[in-house]
Amino acid sequence: MGKNVINVGFLGCGNVGAGTIKVLHDNAEAIRRKIGAEIRVKRVAVAHLDKARPEWVDRDLLTTDPADVIDDPEIDILAETIGGLNPAKAYLIRAMERGKHIVSANKELLAKEGHDLLPVAAERGLDFFFEGAVAGGIPIIRPLMTDLAANRIDRIEGIVNGTTNFILTKMAHEGRDFGEVLAEAQKLGYAEVDPTDDVEGYDAAYKLAILASTAFSSRVPIREVYFEGIRNVSAADIHSAAELGYVIKLLAIAKRAGDSMELRVHPAFVPKLHPLSAVNDVFNALFLHGDAVGDVMFYGRGAGSLPTGSAVAGDIMDIARNIRTDSTARVASTCFAQLPILPMDEVQTRYYIRMRVEDRPKVLAAVANVLGDHQVSIASVVQRETHDGQAEIVWLTHPAVERNMKAALEEIRNLPAVRAVNNMIRVED
Amino acid sequence: MGKNVINVGFLGCGNVGAGTIKVLHDNAEAIRRKIGAEIRVKRVAVAHLDKARPEWVDRDLLTTDPADVIDDPEIDILAETIGGLNPAKAYLIRAMERGKHIVSANKELLAKEGHDLLPVAAERGLDFFFEGAVAGGIPIIRPLMTDLAANRIDRIEGIVNGTTNFILTKMAHEGRDFGEVLAEAQKLGYAEVDPTDDVEGYDAAYKLAILASTAFSSRVPIREVYFEGIRNVSAADIHSAAELGYVIKLLAIAKRAGDSMELRVHPAFVPKLHPLSAVNDVFNALFLHGDAVGDVMFYGRGAGSLPTGSAVAGDIMDIARNIRTDSTARVASTCFAQLPILPMDEVQTRYYIRMRVEDRPKVLAAVANVLGDHQVSIASVVQRETHDGQAEIVWLTHPAVERNMKAALEEIRNLPAVRAVNNMIRVED
Repeated sequence: MGKNVINVGFLGCGNVGAGTIKVLHDNAEAIRRKIGAEIRVKRVAVAHLDKARPEWVDRDLLTTDPADVIDDPEIDILAETIGGLNPAKAYLIRAMERGKHIVSANKELLAKEGHDLLPVAAERGLDFFFEGAVAGGIPIIRPLMTDLAANRIDRIEGIVNGTTNFILTKMAHEGRDFGEVLAEAQKLGYAEVDPTDDVEGYDAAYKLAILASTAFSSRVPIREVYFEGIRNVSAADIHSAAELGYVIKLLAIAKRAGDSMELRVHPAFVPKLHPLSAVNDVFNALFLHGDAVGDVMFYGRGAGSLPTGSAVAGDIMDIARNIRTDSTARVASTCFAQLPILPMDEVQTRYYIRMRVEDRPKVLAAVANVLGDHQVSIASVVQRETHDGQAEIVWLTHPAVERNMKAALEEIRNLPAVRAVNNMIRVED
Repeated sequence: MGKNVINVGFLGCGNVGAGTIKVLHDNAEAIRRKIGAEIRVKRVAVAHLDKARPEWVDRDLLTTDPADVIDDPEIDILAETIGGLNPAKAYLIRAMERGKHIVSANKELLAKEGHDLLPVAAERGLDFFFEGAVAGGIPIIRPLMTDLAANRIDRIEGIVNGTTNFILTKMAHEGRDFGEVLAEAQKLGYAEVDPTDDVEGYDAAYKLAILASTAFSSRVPIREVYFEGIRNVSAADIHSAAELGYVIKLLAIAKRAGDSMELRVHPAFVPKLHPLSAVNDVFNALFLHGDAVGDVMFYGRGAGSLPTGSAVAGDIMDIARNIRTDSTARVASTCFAQLPILPMDEVQTRYYIRMRVEDRPKVLAAVANVLGDHQVSIASVVQRETHDGQAEIVWLTHPAVERNMKAALEEIRNLPAVRAVNNMIRVED
């Protein structure tokens, strides 16, 4: 059986790259016995030779020239951990042209350019794995492609961004406001100096696109994925949610809707009895439903050097087995479907609405009438005095069509007695 | 690439067999596109031809002669869903001698005879998969062997028996006693007429042996696995647990302890904040810790026709891919270690003890002294009057050695003022 040494080259040795190297190093002997071959880190391309590195990174392997990895004919597997679209994409295409198998944890690259990259791998009989791109160390991509492959997956609801989950958890437990908690998360290193990617939902949208594509065997044009971040979630919303028996989570949702897909990332009310409601701090979880398996949940650390390193190293081991048995590309990314994405305006869900109105007769009725005019039916409503001549009204609706809900809100905002529509958050039961 | 039709033969068409056939039937087209070949059910051996079958089972495929499956040279994969040791073991060996790959959901067979069966597969270059043998539809065996393969797994704590979890959940939510709830579970079909396998912990012990062997790459002699069922758990214990912030679950626990393994199945106190505490009814979950990935949990339906059918069908698809790429046996079950099992007497854990004593001075002190004499240190204690001249005392200890705990209880039982030691349940924090 095949080669006794499988050579791996790294592009990048930051958080994920160094974590992967540590895992391969610490468990080298067990990995060798499981694979029947040694996995050797042969070369590591970095931006700066002089930067401090953890002690398990052999400085002799470092190079500043990516070509030393991409063009080395002895390297079998290229692990890309530099992130971003460019130059990662060009590097990976060149590496595949040179016959290298790819492992990448680069969610932005996979979500935006996967449709260009994966066919190159398939044509050349190469493996291209990306377990680490979604939910860090949690096994999800491979289970979807193997263990659960016989299922028709109907829906996935995921908490896939650790930074926002940390912020929402803190806000809920400590009753604090978004800005304050974000600042603390930045100080702790859980949020970036520029938190846009996490806080505005980009990161979750990338992961959702990869998940949906894998689960539904369909292309997912990332531009059509609706996403919204958590900036508008206030302590008052979280408090209202708790009173109604919910917690607020940033959910990534993929559902089959007839022959279309519903794909959306936004803050959502999750019932306290739902397993996702207990996923706190930086933890991630994926809750999914298949026609045979029913409900399944995967839970764990969605980011971090070692958890993501665990996923990247697992991908490397799987490719090594394929190389040893001459069976690379045995599990191809089969996007045989081209399911259209349901426009957000046509999505049906339930809604929470919080508003400020003047505290005088018939205001509640006026708002309720507008909702009714737009086929939005009310499940529950609570009005409270605020002792400043105003009242706060919190509505929970029955399922309604997004377009109707938006039209209703537009009209409600223009009612003379309505001071502000503070927030509208979707409710997922 | 390889064959366009992969033939599967079934031994057995009960709950799991019929569920698997349904999954393969319902999603046939998607499965064909994912594999690149058709998976065809060619023959199904059953005990009775005349028995009623679901409509998706083609009666023309039925035979009462297992040899029609085992000896058919056109059958590539044999799915064994008859259960039990004999004749299943002999059938599988004969099928492997005829070059057939095996999928089995037979936990008793794997736990007791896996050490005989898996080497036959390995020697002949055959696949032998058993994802359905542990926790039904929940992906766990393959994730351990692939996604998480780079980790050193330190421990697994699982709720792996749906029947006992249903019973414990009902007891907790409704304050009812074991016997009553068992009778109801039997009426609902959640417990067998002879419930021994589930209720006494045999089923969980089989699954634990398979899990530990997979996670620790070690042989596990099933006779050395300690197990205890839930018959002695009373409504009073569940009530005490709740007051102390715990729920009682039947846990299957595998831990590395130095160069040994700790393997045990027993009722356990699980803190209410632990994710396993919220796993209710017939659901199963596996909570595990790896050196790189950290904590991970897998949750879903641990039994049932379609969930287990999902796992068996996933195994069949994985083998079909291997057949297509001529790479069967690419992931072998590598039990390269022979870790000894720590004798139960040497296990360290915390304990809950509930006892009845005479309500007079110095009794609590006498019991506490015996515990102390045996190096059992007390974390908390609550004594309550019972208004019949007796008192109930509930103790929670700090970690202690099982041998010492047992010796202490022996001595406590003989104290003149002690009427009864009602229960001792281990506490897993």
